[in-house]
Amino acid sequence: MTETSFTSETQARIEQSFAKQGLMSTLGARLGQITPGEVHIHLPMSGRVTQQHGFFHGGATSAIADSAGGYAALTLFDPGSAVLTVEYKINLLAPARGDELEAVGTILKSGRTLTICRLDVYAHANGARVLVAAGQQTLIRIDNP
Amino acid sequence: MTETSFTSETQARIEQSFAKQGLMSTLGARLGQITPGEVHIHLPMSGRVTQQHGFFHGGATSAIADSAGGYAALTLFDPGSAVLTVEYKINLLAPARGDELEAVGTILKSGRTLTICRLDVYAHANGARVLVAAGQQTLIRIDNP
Amino acid sequence: MTETSFTSETQARIEQSFAKQGLMSTLGARLGQITPGEVHIHLPMSGRVTQQHGFFHGGATSAIADSAGGYAALTLFDPGSAVLTVEYKINLLAPARGDELEAVGTILKSGRTLTICRLDVYAHANGARVLVAAGQQTLIRIDNP
Amino acid sequence: MTETSFTSETQARIEQSFAKQGLMSTLGARLGQITPGEVHIHLPMSGRVTQQHGFFHGGATSAIADSAGGYAALTLFDPGSAVLTVEYKINLLAPARGDELEAVGTILKSGRTLTICRLDVYAHANGARVLVAAGQQTLIRIDNP
Repeated sequence: MTETSFTSETQARIEQSFAKQGLMSTLGARLGQITPGEVHIHLPMSGRVTQQHGFFHGGATSAIADSAGGYAALTLFDPGSAVLTVEYKINLLAPARGDELEAVGTILKSGRTLTICRLDVYAHANGARVLVAAGQQTLIRIDNP
Repeated sequence: MTETSFTSETQARIEQSFAKQGLMSTLGARLGQITPGEVHIHLPMSGRVTQQHGFFHGGATSAIADSAGGYAALTLFDPGSAVLTVEYKINLLAPARGDELEAVGTILKSGRTLTICRLDVYAHANGARVLVAAGQQTLIRIDNP
Repeated sequence: MTETSFTSETQARIEQSFAKQGLMSTLGARLGQITPGEVHIHLPMSGRVTQQHGFFHGGATSAIADSAGGYAALTLFDPGSAVLTVEYKINLLAPARGDELEAVGTILKSGRTLTICRLDVYAHANGARVLVAAGQQTLIRIDNP
Repeated sequence: MTETSFTSETQARIEQSFAKQGLMSTLGARLGQITPGEVHIHLPMSGRVTQQHGFFHGGATSAIADSAGGYAALTLFDPGSAVLTVEYKINLLAPARGDELEAVGTILKSGRTLTICRLDVYAHANGARVLVAAGQQTLIRIDNP
């Protein structure tokens, strides 16, 4: 597959799927960089995504991490395949404060049935980029419904 | 602690904390039953919480599970203590479809520093209650900021 | 499947597989109760399985938990299928001291491809049975090699 | 802390602790490279550590990964502190076959109370080094008993 076809076809599929995720729109998340095996999702701070102390809620952190991993898996699938999260584990390493979160899903192992991803979430605050969450995710390929 | 004081004091603290979580309000989640060591959170289906196929997004499922476990831990803390999620792992067992999700956080082990919770999420659909996600969570007690 | 055929066929397959696991024999573990969807493994205390303070090593605790979950999955498979652990997460809840550990693997969800198990490990000490570890495991069914 | 003092003091503490772990000796594991924040453990193939197909048992893979992470945490502790595994999650990515396993524990976040480690396990076979397991671990610092 050429880089061009990756960009035009796979990226379009991922953007269409992302646009259908009501939750991502509710949170105010947007797709970032998409390359084979790695997808970024950005989430600006807003009152919509806070926990009780005004930081990003762990549930918001996890939601964009989960989606970033799922779309990372999808970058290596053909158009007839879809992906479901089987499970993930995430450590919240530091208070998630700042202007924006950036979740990065990266494929660790891509198999016929299962894909395993690393999940990293960074907070952007005062010009710094701090790792605030790290996790690992198992996904399963299914035929497109 | 008498059941009465549990109800009046602890429940009030949890309700106040929950009300401050912008994310829970954004998703449309509400607190359910609160008993010592166990807290329920309900999430009605809406376009705000869907994934690309119209089911509940795994991120929404996880967010209410995470909060339910955190508040379950809080039921056994004195008013001077707060709680942070250290990490959790969740398996998405079945498509989360239906009218409402119900997350149940239950304490498995309550220690001086760490609390471990079971997380179970059920979907209510057509009068049935189906387990759609199950997880396990580690929390840490901190002094109230 | 009748209870009789379960006992005679499935139990024999599990016992044969267990006998081939060099690690279980090295640790001194033995199979306990086998019922559809649930398998127990016992591990007596010995110098072979300790950590630096003389308690059961978390690696030994995890090893029998992992095997108990795998064999629990196998109880629902036909003879042509085998099982591999995809991943598991385990919390070590309390020091694992005592005369014996007992790991219990219980199926939470049995699907066509994936099985999810709960893992619980108890320590037997002074006549008491204490939960010392709890986890959750994902397994995949494969054709018997 | 100078590199010299790290080598002589911390390394000695880790070697002494490792030597007391009956399980590591039972499996035939040995300590490898120790640097601040990263520890390697090696496990040669033998009949002592196999599963039913003759590969390394997932329990053996996990046991050395768990220990590597624990000792990685210990490299940053003063002599008065010890470490306990709170929990870990591990994905078994590929059949663990070969002459030797090499587990690498790497600190992701070192806090006052909790340390989070990445766990990677490689199989050495036919001159190649293949990632066969990856995980994430939470540890707690305790006063030396």
